[in-house]
Order: sequence, then structure tokens, then C-alpha cells
Amino acid sequence: VKPKRSSPAAPPQALILAGGSGTRFWPLSRRRRPKQFLALDGEATLLQATLQRLQPLVEPSAVWVCTTAALCREVARQLPEVPRRQILAEPEGRNTAAAIAWSLSRMPARLRDAPIVVLPADHRVADPAAFRLRLGQAIEAVRERDLVVTLGVVPRWPETGYGYLRLGRTLDERSGLRRVSRFTEKPDLARARRFVRSGAYLWNAGIFVFRAATVLREVERHLPELHAGLRKMGRERLRVARLYGTLPAVSIDVGLMEKLSIVATLPLDCGWSDLGSWAALQEVRPQDDRGNAIVGEVVALDASRNLLFADSGLVAVLGVEGLAVVRSRDSVLVVPLERSQEVRRILAELEARGHAVLL
Amino acid sequence: VKPKRSSPAAPPQALILAGGSGTRFWPLSRRRRPKQFLALDGEATLLQATLQRLQPLVEPSAVWVCTTAALCREVARQLPEVPRRQILAEPEGRNTAAAIAWSLSRMPARLRDAPIVVLPADHRVADPAAFRLRLGQAIEAVRERDLVVTLGVVPRWPETGYGYLRLGRTLDERSGLRRVSRFTEKPDLARARRFVRSGAYLWNAGIFVFRAATVLREVERHLPELHAGLRKMGRERLRVARLYGTLPAVSIDVGLMEKLSIVATLPLDCGWSDLGSWAALQEVRPQDDRGNAIVGEVVALDASRNLLFADSGLVAVLGVEGLAVVRSRDSVLVVPLERSQEVRRILAELEARGHAVLL
Repeated sequence: VKPKRSSPAAPPQALILAGGSGTRFWPLSRRRRPKQFLALDGEATLLQATLQRLQPLVEPSAVWVCTTAALCREVARQLPEVPRRQILAEPEGRNTAAAIAWSLSRMPARLRDAPIVVLPADHRVADPAAFRLRLGQAIEAVRERDLVVTLGVVPRWPETGYGYLRLGRTLDERSGLRRVSRFTEKPDLARARRFVRSGAYLWNAGIFVFRAATVLREVERHLPELHAGLRKMGRERLRVARLYGTLPAVSIDVGLMEKLSIVATLPLDCGWSDLGSWAALQEVRPQDDRGNAIVGEVVALDASRNLLFADSGLVAVLGVEGLAVVRSRDSVLVVPLERSQEVRRILAELEARGHAVLL
Repeated sequence: VKPKRSSPAAPPQALILAGGSGTRFWPLSRRRRPKQFLALDGEATLLQATLQRLQPLVEPSAVWVCTTAALCREVARQLPEVPRRQILAEPEGRNTAAAIAWSLSRMPARLRDAPIVVLPADHRVADPAAFRLRLGQAIEAVRERDLVVTLGVVPRWPETGYGYLRLGRTLDERSGLRRVSRFTEKPDLARARRFVRSGAYLWNAGIFVFRAATVLREVERHLPELHAGLRKMGRERLRVARLYGTLPAVSIDVGLMEKLSIVATLPLDCGWSDLGSWAALQEVRPQDDRGNAIVGEVVALDASRNLLFADSGLVAVLGVEGLAVVRSRDSVLVVPLERSQEVRRILAELEARGHAVLL
């Protein structure tokens, strides 16, 4: 009996990573209103949908959110069910390894052996039931074994924008739990095609389940600077504010997961999308009979395969094809969907002109 | 000596026809804010530019405006220099013959022999000096002879959207004043090409100079119903409101000018445009080195030959070509320039949806 540790039956926790400051959904996303705060896919914002998707496996009272100081208030506003002290504000973003390790270090010791689900705040899942089924299996696996389980998305096309997980030996026949034998960074198209064709790879969606004790132990081993930095920093607010920026900024994948031999994965097939661009949104939204994805007050005549998004006012198009047309209160964006990744160039131009209010 | 008539030296008057309710510049033009009230081409609205263009040949104190009751207040607001009682409000639009004849009938008898310039409120002239030179010659011609002089625009392409004037015999070698031997309605492309190639045709721009006495006499002869209707109606306000709608609705061209043998024309080459669509505006506005005509706060990257009009807020485009993108306070329009004539289809759709506020 180890009285200072939690029982393995402690309720599972979740840590939502909500510090993103994405610019890809400009003009809707802004510095102070990044993607996770937007209702891109339905009534709820992506952040709210992330919380809802966890229930009932993880109750809101067991949810932690890691965000930045600038976004903290909006997180609290959107997630009133989450206890305010479990919304953790990084003084600045230092990538996911620091965000996760710091957040784990803020959790009480009684949760050290509870399964913790770590997931981004700004992804989309079309089939939450399928997601929960896999998540439940991952939680069980972590209760039983000293593993880091990642939910890997069954790839639907040779995407070059994602990392891939290579499947290793089977750990559990019933659930399909398998060792991850390698993390692969974004491949070129030829490799991505081989990966998908082989059936031996999953997309890395950045969704992990583990015990805090496991990851903190591995951080100490593989990211000693981060471990030491967290110890030195402690919990005192001003000290955190002063020292947080000195933590090494590395992703949890590169900094830790790639180095571990205890990572396993369950294949996830739940209509997952990281919604990386307006084009990705166009693909996942319901479409009219000419392939237009429409949000808000829109008139579309002789128009095909567009994303037409009226967050404010009216969008009227005639005779156009394959465009993203997005109207916010103060701006409108028009870009071919296949170039919607280049939106950041517009932001750079606005910044150069000194139009900070539009960023 | 005819004591009740004005001397031929009475100062020239102008009658600006400002009753148009065009829908082609939606979403900027609205029922209550038609094209003539918009600053499509510079700081001044088209109506204000029309007034400015007349000076010093016709002073604002000698300007009359025929508009509709709904637009009267805005005309007065935009043209404070024009005496308020010279802004005439039709109870409803009954086409140009009624508008002109009624307006002439409202002018005092002392102006019956003064030259009167009739012109639309919503055209554009790039070279006002060239316009004034011709207008001065037309005024002189009308002082000297019992003529209706129309300024015909030297055609620059085989436009099928305009009527044409066929040139007849020369009346004045020095100014180039020629008889109009025929009014031609909008031709098909083959005819329009022949017209332009022949050098014997001018565009009918709807700009006329005549004496009120001349036109009122010809109305009595060729449009007896209109003449009788105006007599019956008189000047009493309620009676005008009740009977105006019974006047025959016919254009001055078809109803009168085509039937007259006293119409002459002077060729006008002053960068005239009737600004019939967003495409026409794109052609006449200054363009950047990629052919984009830009108004307001616009970011255009890798974009060519667009009309980008931000009447409110920001318009940002990337990688698009040949589009009109127009942002008003409450709406945005995106349409290929070559289809910008079809904007009225969007209005019909809005009307069908009951969105009267956007019309």
C-alpha cells in the first residue's frame, strides 16, 4: 500500500490544450479569438465541443485546461462547468511538452496515477460515440499497464500535413491495441501514399492517455532541462511568470513520445479532422446539392463547391466555384479553397500596414 | 417683341434626371440609395459630380433636379447649392418623357426660351473640360436655332447595351454639328460592329439641350396624351399626387426624339460611361499594376483584374482573378466581372426570402 498515491480507480482526468493562436481561420480567428473559440462546425465552439465529447467518460469537474494568460478569461466564459482553478494560464506558449508537463505538475498528488486524457481544443470529431468507445479502451489500457496510449486516426487520404504513427506488435487482440514502433514527421506525398497503402500507419492526432506519474517520470529522464526548469520555477505566480519563458520549447512528440518504448495506439475512425484550413472546413460541413458548404445568411446562385461563411451580415455570390468567401463583422476574405492555407500572407500584409486591430 | 417670353440671352438651365432606382450596384446601391447617390468614382457622388461638371456653364442656381418623392430629401442633402424649390419630386417614376415634360411645365414662363441641358444624374465623365466644350457649343446652337441638340458619344467599342444615333447632314462645319437622321435601339453585336466601323454613328447618352418651348410644343404634337395629362393635372400638390400615375410612361427617345426632324448632335469624346455594372466601373477606375481597381481598405495578393470595393471594413483577396468583390456595411457580393449584370438575380432571391432591408 502506497498511501500518498491515488488508487488506480481514481476518476479519469482530461487536459485540454487550448493555447493555440492559429491564424488559419482569419478573418474569424483573431489573436484574442483563436480557432478553438469559434463555432466553425455547429452551435458549440470547438472548445465546448471538445468538453462535450469527453462526457460521460470524463466529467467537467475532472477537466483541466491549459491555455495562455491572454485567453484564460474566454476559456472560463465558454466552459463554466470547468472549475476555475483547473484552467491553467501559461504566461506564454512554450510548445506542448512544457504545457503538458507544467499542467501535470499543477495537478494534486492524489491524481498522479489517474488516467489523464490529453487532447487539443480545436479539432473536430463527426462521430463522438466512436471517439468515446476508443477513449474508454485507452483509459482501461492505461489503468492496467504503464503505457502511453495515443489514439491514431485511420488515414483516409495520403495527407502530407500530418505526422504518422507506425504500428508495431499487437498488445491486445480484443481492442486492437498495438505498440507504436515509430513516430514519423510530415512525409512527402510518395511516402504518404506508401504509408496509407500499407495499412501499417495511423495519423498522429495528438490525443494521448497516460498517468501523470508515467509522463513526469519520462520527462525527468528524456527532458531533464524541462524537469529542472519546472522544479526551479515552483508554483508561486510571479516566479512562474518570470521563469516560464526559460522552459525548453519542444513538442511532446519530438521531445518525449518519439523516445519512449511504452507508446501504444488504438485506431480511431470517428470523422476526425484537425480543421487546418477553410478548405478542410468546406470538406466536413454539410453541402448543398452543388457542393457549397454554407454557414449563416448566404445567397448562392450558379455557384459550386464553395465555402460560404457569413459570420455577420449577408454573403451573396453568383457564378463562382471553389472559393472560400468568409465575412466577419469587419472584414471579408475571398480565396480559392486550394490556397486557403496561404491566409497567413494576408495577416503579414495587415501587420506590415499596422492594422493590428484586424489581426 | 414678345414681352411674355424670355430673352434668348436668359442664362442656360439644367435639368438633372435623378429618379433612377438602379439595382446594378448592389450591395452599395439600395432602393433608398440608388447609384446616383454613390461615390463610385472619387470623393463626390455621381449626382454631385454631375452638378460640378456643368459649372460654370450652368450655375447651381439654374439647376433643376427631377427625382422621386422617396429620394427627394437625399438629393437636397447632396446638392445644398441647388434651390430647394427646384428639386422636383415625381410622385412615382413614369419614364423620361413624363419626367422631362412635367419638369419643364414647372419652370417659370420666363425660362421658356432659355437653353436647357437635360442629363442623367448617374453617368461618369473622365474629362469634364471636353464635356463642357461640347456642351457650350450645344447651348450656342440652341440659342441660334430651333433645334434639339443631343451630345452623342464617339463609340469606343461595339457596345450592344446602348442606343445609337445615325449622323445626317452637317449643319455647322466649325463645331461639327450634324443632323441626327435616325435613333437606333440597342443593336445586336454584328450591327453594333458595322455601326462603329462606319464612323456614321454615335452612342446615345441621353444628354439633350433644347428650349423648353421647343420640347413642350413637340410634346403637344407627338405625345398628346402626355400634354393633356399635364394640363389636367395642374400644379396643385394633392392633384399631382393623384394623377401623376396616369401619365403615359414612355422614354423621351421613343416617345419624342425619334419622331422629330429637328434633332442634331455634337460628337462627345470625354471618357463618358454610363457605369452600367461593376464591370464598367472596373474599367474606368485607376488600376494597380495587376489590373485591380481598388476602392477602400483592400489587401490583394496574387490577384489580377478584379474590382475590389470596400465601402465598409476590409476586403482581403488572394489568388483570384476577374472578380467583383464588394463589401458594404451589411453585405458582401462576389461575382465574376463578366456576370456582374446578373446582380438583379440576387435581389430577386432576397426579395423572395423577404429580406426587404437588404434591397
